[in-house]
Amino acid sequence: MREVTAYNWVPDVAQGHVKDLRVRWALEEAGLPYAERLIDHQQKLQPEHLKRQPFAQVPAYNDGAADMFESGAIVMRIAESSETLMPRDEAGRARTMSWAFAALNSIEPFVMKVSWTELFWPDAPWAPAYLVHARGMLGGRLAQLEQWLERRDYLEGRFTAGDLLMASVLRDLERHNILPGYPNVEAFMKRCTGRPAFARALEAQLKVFAAHPPQPVGA
Amino acid sequence: MREVTAYNWVPDVAQGHVKDLRVRWALEEAGLPYAERLIDHQQKLQPEHLKRQPFAQVPAYNDGAADMFESGAIVMRIAESSETLMPRDEAGRARTMSWAFAALNSIEPFVMKVSWTELFWPDAPWAPAYLVHARGMLGGRLAQLEQWLERRDYLEGRFTAGDLLMASVLRDLERHNILPGYPNVEAFMKRCTGRPAFARALEAQLKVFAAHPPQPVGA
Repeated sequence: MREVTAYNWVPDVAQGHVKDLRVRWALEEAGLPYAERLIDHQQKLQPEHLKRQPFAQVPAYNDGAADMFESGAIVMRIAESSETLMPRDEAGRARTMSWAFAALNSIEPFVMKVSWTELFWPDAPWAPAYLVHARGMLGGRLAQLEQWLERRDYLEGRFTAGDLLMASVLRDLERHNILPGYPNVEAFMKRCTGRPAFARALEAQLKVFAAHPPQPVGA
Repeated sequence: MREVTAYNWVPDVAQGHVKDLRVRWALEEAGLPYAERLIDHQQKLQPEHLKRQPFAQVPAYNDGAADMFESGAIVMRIAESSETLMPRDEAGRARTMSWAFAALNSIEPFVMKVSWTELFWPDAPWAPAYLVHARGMLGGRLAQLEQWLERRDYLEGRFTAGDLLMASVLRDLERHNILPGYPNVEAFMKRCTGRPAFARALEAQLKVFAAHPPQPVGA
């Protein structure tokens, strides 16, 4: 049985944005059932969890044959068993892999610079001037993605795990009033997150948080 | 024939740090010959290149069967054909993939915050206070990696593409006086970059730059 390790509760600001969402989404797209292994913010710091996730985060994943961490890696593992998430031909697999890393290494770091600063450190003395800089850097990358998506509904013409990861990253910008400047990117993100599998994944994550009481999140 | 797209020249600060190095290193580990396709900083902005690398960067890669971008993705593709870079069993493949994404999504964004600021924007008004913050965030991740490496020579006991990518990321910290605070991490990085394949890859990148005249690097 596939098992996804996730938090039993997170603060409002993180609800619907914890990275097990990507894994749940991939499993829903692939039509694969899974069990949840829920941990709290004390357990994430214990050796038992650090053995499975060295950075004291979620998700972690076990499918019987493999023990994994990193949402991108887990999504790519799930994609190997689902043609919905990855074409079977070598060229298509390689393109899916390229976009998976592009989402998490060429786009997400620039998204994080803006979103984490605005959400967590808006009053830091460096925040206002830094945000001008960070929004400029992010805007450059989004403009390139905007151009790529000019005549494409999906990154490679059909939905893949690369789109799933890219849309997951872009969705974190919804509350920062940036995407309206990039209509192709925004439409792409909404096209991907409009899929029924995404709605089921989001509902599953939020349901867990609603069922558990608030707690200190710790380090 | 495998073909790696790389710059024909970059400024001193980037020499030995352009990301085709990771791909060259992987190919050297795998014992696979490759050709260079060299471009300059005008060509990187042209439609011909943007078709192959949407973010106007290097590397791009073609091996006859697949056309790729993103150094992490390319390294993982090369790893599929080399047991030196990835165990053949499912569990080992999954761990290699986890560490590949960990290097590029859980460590590199934090490395970039510090290294890009210190190298490119040291005099920005936000830089001094921001660097205190960014070094703190990076230190947290490095402390976790330090603990993981406590009784391990490599991330999973043997060298894989995950180690190659992690060491490539960590190596960018050499000029920032941070790694001496994390002796396991520093020793790991040196163990990986001490491999003959890395030396050959670095030499190959530097040789190209030495053979071409300086040029404006543009946007």
